[in-house]
Amino acid sequence: MNLLLLRDEDFTGPGTVRLHGRRARHAHQVLRAAQGGALRVGKLGGLLGRGEVLHSAPDALELSVQLTDPPPPRARCDLVLAVPRPKALKKVLPAAASLGVDRVVLVNAARVEKSYFDSRVLSPAFIEELLVLGLEQARDTVLPRVEVRDRFRPFVEDELPSLFAGARKLLPHPAAGARMPRLDAGEPAVFAVGPEGGWVPFELDLLCAQGFEAFTLGPRTLRVEVCVPFLLGAKGAP
Amino acid sequence: MNLLLLRDEDFTGPGTVRLHGRRARHAHQVLRAAQGGALRVGKLGGLLGRGEVLHSAPDALELSVQLTDPPPPRARCDLVLAVPRPKALKKVLPAAASLGVDRVVLVNAARVEKSYFDSRVLSPAFIEELLVLGLEQARDTVLPRVEVRDRFRPFVEDELPSLFAGARKLLPHPAAGARMPRLDAGEPAVFAVGPEGGWVPFELDLLCAQGFEAFTLGPRTLRVEVCVPFLLGAKGAP
Repeated sequence: MNLLLLRDEDFTGPGTVRLHGRRARHAHQVLRAAQGGALRVGKLGGLLGRGEVLHSAPDALELSVQLTDPPPPRARCDLVLAVPRPKALKKVLPAAASLGVDRVVLVNAARVEKSYFDSRVLSPAFIEELLVLGLEQARDTVLPRVEVRDRFRPFVEDELPSLFAGARKLLPHPAAGARMPRLDAGEPAVFAVGPEGGWVPFELDLLCAQGFEAFTLGPRTLRVEVCVPFLLGAKGAP
Repeated sequence: MNLLLLRDEDFTGPGTVRLHGRRARHAHQVLRAAQGGALRVGKLGGLLGRGEVLHSAPDALELSVQLTDPPPPRARCDLVLAVPRPKALKKVLPAAASLGVDRVVLVNAARVEKSYFDSRVLSPAFIEELLVLGLEQARDTVLPRVEVRDRFRPFVEDELPSLFAGARKLLPHPAAGARMPRLDAGEPAVFAVGPEGGWVPFELDLLCAQGFEAFTLGPRTLRVEVCVPFLLGAKGAP
């Protein structure tokens, strides 16, 4: 945890917060917070800053906070991910948040196991927990928006065009002939990453009809939690 | 497991293998191997090919194999990693193998916890297990070479120059002013990735004295298992 993320309900006054539970424990035990010391803090959705420790105990932390600095720049990158297996989702969502992804749509696909939709990992509360881990890691305050869509075609045909208007639409696909196109610096992009086993031809056609350009990363099949940081790196700096 | 990796000792004749344990079980239960079916195989350190199932049972698999195709191209990338915590190492080594990294040096550093060196995760046998997972994922047969060095300075001064002669030496460091330099297509590179908390100034100086160029990925602090795929993506296609 490189940042203590604060929420509205943590504030006891205009510049003071009181925390309990996981954050207070982490500050006390790992960061060894002590009266007069300083911790990095950030307001969820807002500014970064400094918290002076007024009181620290295993389950209670009081800070006087000054929020002065903007969060890091966004990656200008969105993701459409075929719903990964829960174990992979637990890795890829914190990774995406730490990388500054703006939006993640978790979409059903022919080769997605239907049981994944029953997983508690897809509940909004658990998704937010995973994203917060990524923000704490990267010292960011801006939660990616995450949507879950259990019908591929209506999502791609009806929602996708307006969600990603203006973004370069890119589709890594092992069988594509082209290499990844070079993007302009800061060009917004959305990557559509298929399930284990890949998108089926119907899905590829539907995505390409919406302007996605297929390209290959080479013959290596990467895990989604490896593929996503790789794509962000290949996209280049914001 | 996208590839069954074969070893010398699996061969019962010039074109036949017999497997037990994890691989046989996976083939039987997950890949549903059945007599006459075909599986993707590869010889560790050698060619890829096809295995025709002669016999499949929960703990025994017999194949007739034809090895015909070269493994995927290398990333032309090496890594010097400050020894990560065991949990992170278990993620980053399979990731590095799946990405086609050639060599990983796990090196001690001032901010590496000494207890990490007692972890069984650093034993050669366990390291190879982790690498094999990455090869099976990416359908590769070439194990990265992994070395563990518990003394930073002798490694950097005495070994590093000859190990990475000819490679572009790059050092992601949050406080650096420059962005990552653009590499030529296929240019070999080595990245030196610091521990949580970063390299200390003495280590930075020593690396830079050996030709490492510091650059920044921006203010986001990434987990090593996210940073490594990101760097490989930023490096570009082999």
